[in-house]
Amino acid sequence: MFDSVIIGSGPCGISAAIYLKRFGFNVLVIGKDYGTLSINTLIENYYGIESINGIDLIKKGINQAKNLGINVLTEEVVKIEMGNGFTVSTNKNVYACKTVLIATGMKRTTLKIEGLKDFEGRGVSYCAVCDGFLYRKKRIGILGTGEYMKSELEVLKRFSNDITVFTNGEDVDLDENVVCEKIIKIEGENHLESVVCENNTYDIDCLFVAVGVANGSSFARHLGILMDDKEHLIVDNYMTNIPGIFAGGDIIGGIKQIITAASDGCSCAYKIKDYLKEK
Amino acid sequence: MFDSVIIGSGPCGISAAIYLKRFGFNVLVIGKDYGTLSINTLIENYYGIESINGIDLIKKGINQAKNLGINVLTEEVVKIEMGNGFTVSTNKNVYACKTVLIATGMKRTTLKIEGLKDFEGRGVSYCAVCDGFLYRKKRIGILGTGEYMKSELEVLKRFSNDITVFTNGEDVDLDENVVCEKIIKIEGENHLESVVCENNTYDIDCLFVAVGVANGSSFARHLGILMDDKEHLIVDNYMTNIPGIFAGGDIIGGIKQIITAASDGCSCAYKIKDYLKEK
Repeated sequence: MFDSVIIGSGPCGISAAIYLKRFGFNVLVIGKDYGTLSINTLIENYYGIESINGIDLIKKGINQAKNLGINVLTEEVVKIEMGNGFTVSTNKNVYACKTVLIATGMKRTTLKIEGLKDFEGRGVSYCAVCDGFLYRKKRIGILGTGEYMKSELEVLKRFSNDITVFTNGEDVDLDENVVCEKIIKIEGENHLESVVCENNTYDIDCLFVAVGVANGSSFARHLGILMDDKEHLIVDNYMTNIPGIFAGGDIIGGIKQIITAASDGCSCAYKIKDYLKEK
Repeated sequence: MFDSVIIGSGPCGISAAIYLKRFGFNVLVIGKDYGTLSINTLIENYYGIESINGIDLIKKGINQAKNLGINVLTEEVVKIEMGNGFTVSTNKNVYACKTVLIATGMKRTTLKIEGLKDFEGRGVSYCAVCDGFLYRKKRIGILGTGEYMKSELEVLKRFSNDITVFTNGEDVDLDENVVCEKIIKIEGENHLESVVCENNTYDIDCLFVAVGVANGSSFARHLGILMDDKEHLIVDNYMTNIPGIFAGGDIIGGIKQIITAASDGCSCAYKIKDYLKEK
């Protein structure tokens, strides 16, 4: 069992890992990709480094952690569950741990589908565990193509046999009903009633959105972590409302600079250390 | 007039300067020396830099600022005064500014003289402006040798002609009464009465301590900035109780890591920007 599993290999996650490792804890970092920083071309405001490419800084950080003997895995976290401590499931494995640090950043797959926003809470949901039971034996739609969608799909299968996967134009290999058409809009009166695609209209009772990869706010929704209206996780001294789950970096809001994220990581490590020692 | 004068050229001060400069403000950094970090030999927990000497990191930061066109002066700040904005006086010059950032770190000249601590508030003072008037026309002692002592001495001269400078064994060239003997202890009943030196005992009514350089807590005392019992400046969103005077890094307490100090600098810059824009 790991003392801490850190989700995210950006400035916050890696900085936390470096401190936790040096505190003597058994830590694992799981990062899916290079996050928001991979978009930033040139960074010239990070104290101590005059000029560096975003992606180079991320790689540098990961190597720094690896050279300290920290395990940094490139896997996709699909869910976090509570039990005896926590279990973090990726597309490849399951990891048990005493604490979790959510340092995923705020990268979000934005979906511009007419009507999607309007039906949030009225048929459109972002969390199978939270809302699946509302649609027991109903016609369930799920939107997505990747590992995260598959993980949500597994949950929804407990509630209904009538499930349609909407890929919004992509191909995907699944045993379920799959609609690979582009989605034009979501329709309904007070509640979602149908998904209008290029060639056909599909009548369903709900649509679960699980596009792209699970991010900080997906984990928060599934676990009942409090968020503000901008989907930043609400923390008190870097701990969320769930004891043992910490968060830092862009996902908790603030000025979203690299230096503040790296500093958050350090502060998170101190708080995690205190939490583990109290246990 | 500068938009901001930053006192301290460590991680907090330089990081703030980089951000303020890039926000388009006219900023000046004044640093006396390499601070606490010059003692740290090897830094291996700073995100993005695998291993670096403390002094090399400080030099790197200063060069980074200079290459952005920021003026970084090696002068000793002896006082900050309020007026139309603020004036920051060094051993060489006076600088007017709209805001001040105190990022001096917590390096403190510790003095181990028997009785000194016991008579704090009862004859021993650390602030001429604050307590000088209490000893009008009395026998005033002042302890110190440098620019900061001279600056405090100027203030004390307004209150008394009977001033003795104690150097605690060092030589100093001054027109005042100078005692260059080592100090053994401070004596008195309820209130300080005399300074016992190696060869003689000197009867005085008070002793102003102005050893070494003025640091964050000296400035705080002179300006009435609130401090906690560990002499950390108390800030609300990086601003002290004096509007326009900000503080960050070790001087405000917390976990005192390089990464958190550099992050504080960035956060201070954002707060200073907001303050200047409101004005």
